[in-house]
Amino acid sequence: MQDAALLVIDVQKAFDDPAWGQRNNLNAEANIADLLAFWRAKQRAVIHVHHSAEVATSRFYPGNVGHEAKDEGRPLPDEPIFKKLVNSAFIGTELEQYLHTHKIEKLVVVGLTTDHCVSTSVRMAANLGFEVTLVSDATATFERKLDGIHYTAEQIQAVHLASLNDEFCQLTTCSAILGAGS
Amino acid sequence: MQDAALLVIDVQKAFDDPAWGQRNNLNAEANIADLLAFWRAKQRAVIHVHHSAEVATSRFYPGNVGHEAKDEGRPLPDEPIFKKLVNSAFIGTELEQYLHTHKIEKLVVVGLTTDHCVSTSVRMAANLGFEVTLVSDATATFERKLDGIHYTAEQIQAVHLASLNDEFCQLTTCSAILGAGS
Repeated sequence: MQDAALLVIDVQKAFDDPAWGQRNNLNAEANIADLLAFWRAKQRAVIHVHHSAEVATSRFYPGNVGHEAKDEGRPLPDEPIFKKLVNSAFIGTELEQYLHTHKIEKLVVVGLTTDHCVSTSVRMAANLGFEVTLVSDATATFERKLDGIHYTAEQIQAVHLASLNDEFCQLTTCSAILGAGS
Repeated sequence: MQDAALLVIDVQKAFDDPAWGQRNNLNAEANIADLLAFWRAKQRAVIHVHHSAEVATSRFYPGNVGHEAKDEGRPLPDEPIFKKLVNSAFIGTELEQYLHTHKIEKLVVVGLTTDHCVSTSVRMAANLGFEVTLVSDATATFERKLDGIHYTAEQIQAVHLASLNDEFCQLTTCSAILGAGS
C-alpha cells in the first residue's frame, strides 16, 4: 500500500437525499474518514473525484448543496480534485495523465456508489493498467428495482463485489489496511 | 433501431469451457444469431469485438480454439472485428474512432459476459456519449463466489441488469426488436 494513492470517489452530500432509497453500509463514510487520516498521516497521495452536473436542477450541480463533499471526505487544500460529468473518473478528466505524471500505478478505491461510479472507475482503472484495490466496507450503494423485482442495497453490493473481485481488483477492508499499519 | 450498430462482444468458443461453471441463458447465442440475421437483412452496421490474449496458455490466445468465434456469432468477411486485450471494447482498440468516422451514435449490445466485458463496454460506451441499448436475453454470465458465498449466474445477471438499466443503457429483448420489425 505504500505507493498506492487513495482515490476517493463522489463522497458528496447529494447521496444524503432520501430519494435514493435504502442504502447499505452506513459506516462507509466513517471508514473513508479513517482511511483518509491514515493516508495523510503517512503522507501518501490522496486524490478526490467529484461528480458534477451541467443541469442546474441536478443535486450535483456546482453551488447546490449536494455537490459539496461530505465532512468525512472533505479534501484538504493541497489534494487534487477531478470533476467528472459521467460515471467514470477517467472520462472527461485529466486523472489518467495525472497518475502517469506522478508515477502512481496503484490505486486504493473508496466512495459511492459501488455499482455505478465506483465500479465503472475500478473497471476503467484496471483496463488502463493500474493495479486496483477496492475497500469493500468503504463503499456503499442503494436499492434498485427492475421488472417489478426489488434488489436490496446489500444484494447489489455483494454481487458487484463478486463480479469485480480478481477480474478488475483485489478486495480488502478498512480494518485490514489500518490493522496492517503500513 | 434503424441507425444503431449491433455490437457483438466476445461470442467466442472460449466460453464453452466447463471450467467457467454454471451459466444462465443458454439461448443467448441463438438470440444473437437471430439479431445478426436481422441486422444483416436490413443492411445495418454490425461490429464484432473479440477478446484476445498475449499468453499462449489463455483460452483466448489467437490460434487456440477458444479464440474462434462461435458459429452463431461468426463475422462475415466485410464486418469489422476489433481485438481487445482487456474487458472494455474501447481500451486499446480503434472502436471509438471507428464509430465517430462512420457517424454511429447508437449501439445495440449483445454478447458475453454480462457482468465483465459486456458491462464494462456498455458503461464506457455510455460515458463516451453513445446511446446504448442492451439486449438482456442476448447476454449471459457465469456463477461466481466471494467469501464462501455462491451467487448463481441468474442472480448475477439480474443484479447487473438492474444496475445498468437507465444509468448506462436501456434494456430490451430479442423478441421486442424482432417483433417490432424495424
